[in-house]
Amino acid sequence: MNVWGNKLKLSIFGESHGAGVGIVVDGLPAGEPIDAELTAAEMLRRAPGRNDVSTPRREADEVEILSGLLEGKTTGSPICGVIRNGDARSGDYGSALRPGHADWTALLKYGGHADMRGGGHFSGRLTAPLVFAGSMAKQVLSRRGVEVYARIASVGGVEDAENVNGIEAYRAISRRDFPSPPRSEPAMREAILAAGRDGDSIGGVIEAVAFGLPGGLGEPSLGSMESEIASLLFSVPAVKGVEFGGGFRLSAMRGSEANDPLYIDGGVIKSRTNRNGGVLGGITNGMPLAVRVAIKPTPSIAREQESVDAATMREITAAAKGRHDPCIAPRAVPVIEACLALCALDCMLGKC
Amino acid sequence: MNVWGNKLKLSIFGESHGAGVGIVVDGLPAGEPIDAELTAAEMLRRAPGRNDVSTPRREADEVEILSGLLEGKTTGSPICGVIRNGDARSGDYGSALRPGHADWTALLKYGGHADMRGGGHFSGRLTAPLVFAGSMAKQVLSRRGVEVYARIASVGGVEDAENVNGIEAYRAISRRDFPSPPRSEPAMREAILAAGRDGDSIGGVIEAVAFGLPGGLGEPSLGSMESEIASLLFSVPAVKGVEFGGGFRLSAMRGSEANDPLYIDGGVIKSRTNRNGGVLGGITNGMPLAVRVAIKPTPSIAREQESVDAATMREITAAAKGRHDPCIAPRAVPVIEACLALCALDCMLGKC
Amino acid sequence: MNVWGNKLKLSIFGESHGAGVGIVVDGLPAGEPIDAELTAAEMLRRAPGRNDVSTPRREADEVEILSGLLEGKTTGSPICGVIRNGDARSGDYGSALRPGHADWTALLKYGGHADMRGGGHFSGRLTAPLVFAGSMAKQVLSRRGVEVYARIASVGGVEDAENVNGIEAYRAISRRDFPSPPRSEPAMREAILAAGRDGDSIGGVIEAVAFGLPGGLGEPSLGSMESEIASLLFSVPAVKGVEFGGGFRLSAMRGSEANDPLYIDGGVIKSRTNRNGGVLGGITNGMPLAVRVAIKPTPSIAREQESVDAATMREITAAAKGRHDPCIAPRAVPVIEACLALCALDCMLGKC
Amino acid sequence: MNVWGNKLKLSIFGESHGAGVGIVVDGLPAGEPIDAELTAAEMLRRAPGRNDVSTPRREADEVEILSGLLEGKTTGSPICGVIRNGDARSGDYGSALRPGHADWTALLKYGGHADMRGGGHFSGRLTAPLVFAGSMAKQVLSRRGVEVYARIASVGGVEDAENVNGIEAYRAISRRDFPSPPRSEPAMREAILAAGRDGDSIGGVIEAVAFGLPGGLGEPSLGSMESEIASLLFSVPAVKGVEFGGGFRLSAMRGSEANDPLYIDGGVIKSRTNRNGGVLGGITNGMPLAVRVAIKPTPSIAREQESVDAATMREITAAAKGRHDPCIAPRAVPVIEACLALCALDCMLGKC
Repeated sequence: MNVWGNKLKLSIFGESHGAGVGIVVDGLPAGEPIDAELTAAEMLRRAPGRNDVSTPRREADEVEILSGLLEGKTTGSPICGVIRNGDARSGDYGSALRPGHADWTALLKYGGHADMRGGGHFSGRLTAPLVFAGSMAKQVLSRRGVEVYARIASVGGVEDAENVNGIEAYRAISRRDFPSPPRSEPAMREAILAAGRDGDSIGGVIEAVAFGLPGGLGEPSLGSMESEIASLLFSVPAVKGVEFGGGFRLSAMRGSEANDPLYIDGGVIKSRTNRNGGVLGGITNGMPLAVRVAIKPTPSIAREQESVDAATMREITAAAKGRHDPCIAPRAVPVIEACLALCALDCMLGKC
Repeated sequence: MNVWGNKLKLSIFGESHGAGVGIVVDGLPAGEPIDAELTAAEMLRRAPGRNDVSTPRREADEVEILSGLLEGKTTGSPICGVIRNGDARSGDYGSALRPGHADWTALLKYGGHADMRGGGHFSGRLTAPLVFAGSMAKQVLSRRGVEVYARIASVGGVEDAENVNGIEAYRAISRRDFPSPPRSEPAMREAILAAGRDGDSIGGVIEAVAFGLPGGLGEPSLGSMESEIASLLFSVPAVKGVEFGGGFRLSAMRGSEANDPLYIDGGVIKSRTNRNGGVLGGITNGMPLAVRVAIKPTPSIAREQESVDAATMREITAAAKGRHDPCIAPRAVPVIEACLALCALDCMLGKC
Repeated sequence: MNVWGNKLKLSIFGESHGAGVGIVVDGLPAGEPIDAELTAAEMLRRAPGRNDVSTPRREADEVEILSGLLEGKTTGSPICGVIRNGDARSGDYGSALRPGHADWTALLKYGGHADMRGGGHFSGRLTAPLVFAGSMAKQVLSRRGVEVYARIASVGGVEDAENVNGIEAYRAISRRDFPSPPRSEPAMREAILAAGRDGDSIGGVIEAVAFGLPGGLGEPSLGSMESEIASLLFSVPAVKGVEFGGGFRLSAMRGSEANDPLYIDGGVIKSRTNRNGGVLGGITNGMPLAVRVAIKPTPSIAREQESVDAATMREITAAAKGRHDPCIAPRAVPVIEACLALCALDCMLGKC
Repeated sequence: MNVWGNKLKLSIFGESHGAGVGIVVDGLPAGEPIDAELTAAEMLRRAPGRNDVSTPRREADEVEILSGLLEGKTTGSPICGVIRNGDARSGDYGSALRPGHADWTALLKYGGHADMRGGGHFSGRLTAPLVFAGSMAKQVLSRRGVEVYARIASVGGVEDAENVNGIEAYRAISRRDFPSPPRSEPAMREAILAAGRDGDSIGGVIEAVAFGLPGGLGEPSLGSMESEIASLLFSVPAVKGVEFGGGFRLSAMRGSEANDPLYIDGGVIKSRTNRNGGVLGGITNGMPLAVRVAIKPTPSIAREQESVDAATMREITAAAKGRHDPCIAPRAVPVIEACLALCALDCMLGKC
């Protein structure tokens, strides 16, 4: 079902080339100031057409607020934000199914009735409303001592050489146009541009961290913190993997390496390492909550690929037309941040 | 919340050293034969104490059915199955927090009121009810042409040398005591036994596949097939990562490699590869649904570790007492199978 | 939480004097034609200012579709419809709490942050999106053999003299401007107008019936058909009671009167009477599903009432300003119809 | 779906003549003392066979706790309570469909697979787990200043002569064996016994009140307090109507009568009357929350009725065999109390 959350409820709607995309966010506390400039800045981080590693499509991504805000504050009732579409070139899309794309499965599910212009409801454009919602969540969280940041950990196999640790390092990255430490930007940019020059695309890994989250959030068994977070992250197009802390690398470690040693700091239990990513038994332990997300390469590429034409049901070779990001990871960074912020706030509000 | 599912609803309860563990499963169609012997065989696959790579604890894991079955068939009303506890040695557990374990977070969440004997509600024993529920789901699925299998893909970094492809290969593995192809068993067993000899533990990766699932299941955006599956898998203790198809490896590929080329086979669209793991845009495409799960090393190990005594709030070094699996992955295989089967059936029943 | 439904999901937003009100409807099957003229006609049935028993406020109540419809058909993705506000006179509302109104409870819940201009999110205007959603549901239902109608059963104690039975009688009423049989209209209109002349208001009872609903929908115990329907009906402002079939009158009958005798008609079991309103044990029996709803008198009246000024926390006497319906029941008829249609469709789609 | 609640989650299972009935209650705070004697006393209030107005079946209704309680306190994990069945006479039930009973709809929904012995999952016996859960909720509520009581307002049309007002009057009734003021007991008992002598049955109305509930609970629109309460109450077998405050009687009043005048008492806004039953706009106002529930006559009666034999699909006349309450209302009083307590606690815990 197209609704997510416990105390917060998200309901996303819209298509890429229809009237617009939007979201209803219910459950934000009343009386919270929402700074429209902060939100606009977040929207800009995700918006296309800003630089040479992004698609040349330009979308203003201004959010029209239909409800739930009054004089810059939340009223407590549901907030509906709409982002109108513009600059759509629907003629770019035909009946060829793009390999790796939802064209195929939309056909199976909706039998040809889906509005697939520009990817329709499956488009990456549907992440714009998440960024809007996430921006509000971040503002509410920051007044409760929680900050959420994300960065590119790798693109196309080009990894950031060192670990990024500590809230200061993440804050610094969040101010950069390319969401990665300066040391790794040149190689990452070159990998993206090279893929674009080849008419191809690459994927990446994004790491997100929530600092300041209290311990004791989440549930054991069904309803674990990881379940809540993964369920939202896997709703983001192109996400194919989610791991917490050391994640898949833990599977190759011994317990004596993977276990985070405990100590006491100012009367509070802490762990010297954070290989469990701030969650044990489904519940937060007060350490930074760290999650990594695998983003697959943009499926729409300019190279010829074996495919099928849905109208004629014939095998064809075809290249995707239209303008696409050679790597979605940079623009996905604020989306993953938004998702983690929404999860963090949902759990804090519900103390779930 | 400790409830999962849309059309199927699961509600798990119980503690490791209390009266027992159990589950309420609501939403199974009426009139479905449930073979108690098949269920018992599934329970045995997860049960401890069966061989040299498992803990010497012995639990019969017999399921008492309290409701919802009559003369071996589902009645349509909720099925409650209870597995009584036995052979508990609660004296083994003290106030030392085991690093990497939920002892710490249970304290934060429940303030000392949790029943943590044997891990309590956080124990791996809570997966026994999932296997019971999954066994029923598998029986219902098999009559609808769907089969779900899992295998160990790696333990402690020891990977299975080759890909396992096709339903026959998976069926063959499912009949083996050690859920891996014969070629990889010796090295994997040795890795497990070596860890055990060192008083240490190792993790692993489990790969599960659902064959025969129809296309068109799942939802775009919120409510994707991956969201549903991940939310259940991350409720299994020790799971720290979930990826579909190529998962994190897709992040290092180019689009031209990662995209699965399409062709037509008997009037049906198929893909030549399955790097998307049978899901595109959150919706199944009819190819095998393939998911991989990272299992962390068992946190309870016999080696001394830095820790904290919760009673005195002093730093200590301590080794876990009690009997623990040096590697939980072999016994987790039927659990992951069960989860995938429950997700598959939930979506098929609800056509979500 | 401001979300309702199982297979259908409704998410309502908006305030009376903000930008507009709207709804996201997810879960309608793809490919369903939605006739915009039928929808507009439904909206008009609820719209104010149409006749002498209604408030003189005029609202066009045109629905702008933001998503989910393409060339007059559902696409399968969520449908967002927005109704812009106009003709608002916010100056009419001050800090006096209107007795019987949500002014008081909004203050308790939102601490003065709610946008209460015109009743805000509590306004009867929030039922316009329900009528829009219900209109789509009715169109989908009609192609599945289900028709939903409602009528005024009483206003201010003036009851319709006879039972209304059969789909033809209900269809005829649905074509009337005043949703009641002609025999009862004069007395009912006079009761409404008399209350208005006195600066007072009256309530009413609405009876709604779904014809053609298949048997076997709903669930025993938690999740009964009555639970689903009542949970939506009680979200409509001013609804204070819901009863099925004979409802409260059954409480004064003997079993031998209340039990509906069974017989066989064309191989199908039917009941000679329908005092259970088409539901037994929480599950539909195939007879018309009949529900009655108590609507309280409009709380905003022109007469002086004892009240409290929230700004000064002083006791005052005050009369409500603004333009209000002396009886909301006539305009509530399409709202109750919409709710019953949405429930019926939700259950049919989910076979719950 | 057979799950109810937001912060609290209830999952009911069981059949009348199977192994037993039970419930999983998740979400109770950790560390809450649960007095087993108080619970047993509540169970006894509902149990059959206690006096001359009840069925002669005797059931001990002892609750076996399988999980979630340790040394008399909640642990924070789900509590499963099971009530074993005994004294079942399954031979009493044949293939004749009892008019007014779920026999018919179970056949439609489950196609003959339901376990309908003794009413199966539709039996009034399924309310025993609700009383168990409600007893725990009441104990938790009482430590938060909330008390919930119910009483018989009428049976078979015999109404209690006067209003019952104030917590002291309700407390006094709760200590009585027949849950009604002494003045009304003789006429009510006689009505019940007379119906029984005639081989017939009667219904009744139960009024329940929650005292001490804070203002500001509930939600406007979807998710109103009334919606939450009604959705649970309508899951109780035989409930056919639910109304809040004046309910259906408000529909015949004028606004000037129905509106509760406001005043200030000790700095707190209160209302002089409580015709809205403590809820305005879906949100509690701090006045007693008052709800009335219509209970239909027990459908199983000893008199001959027109019916259908499901095995032969022939019209028959038949009288119900077995032992049945001539009026379920007295035993339903603790059930309705339990439901209201569960709703109150769910909303308080979730501040919804």
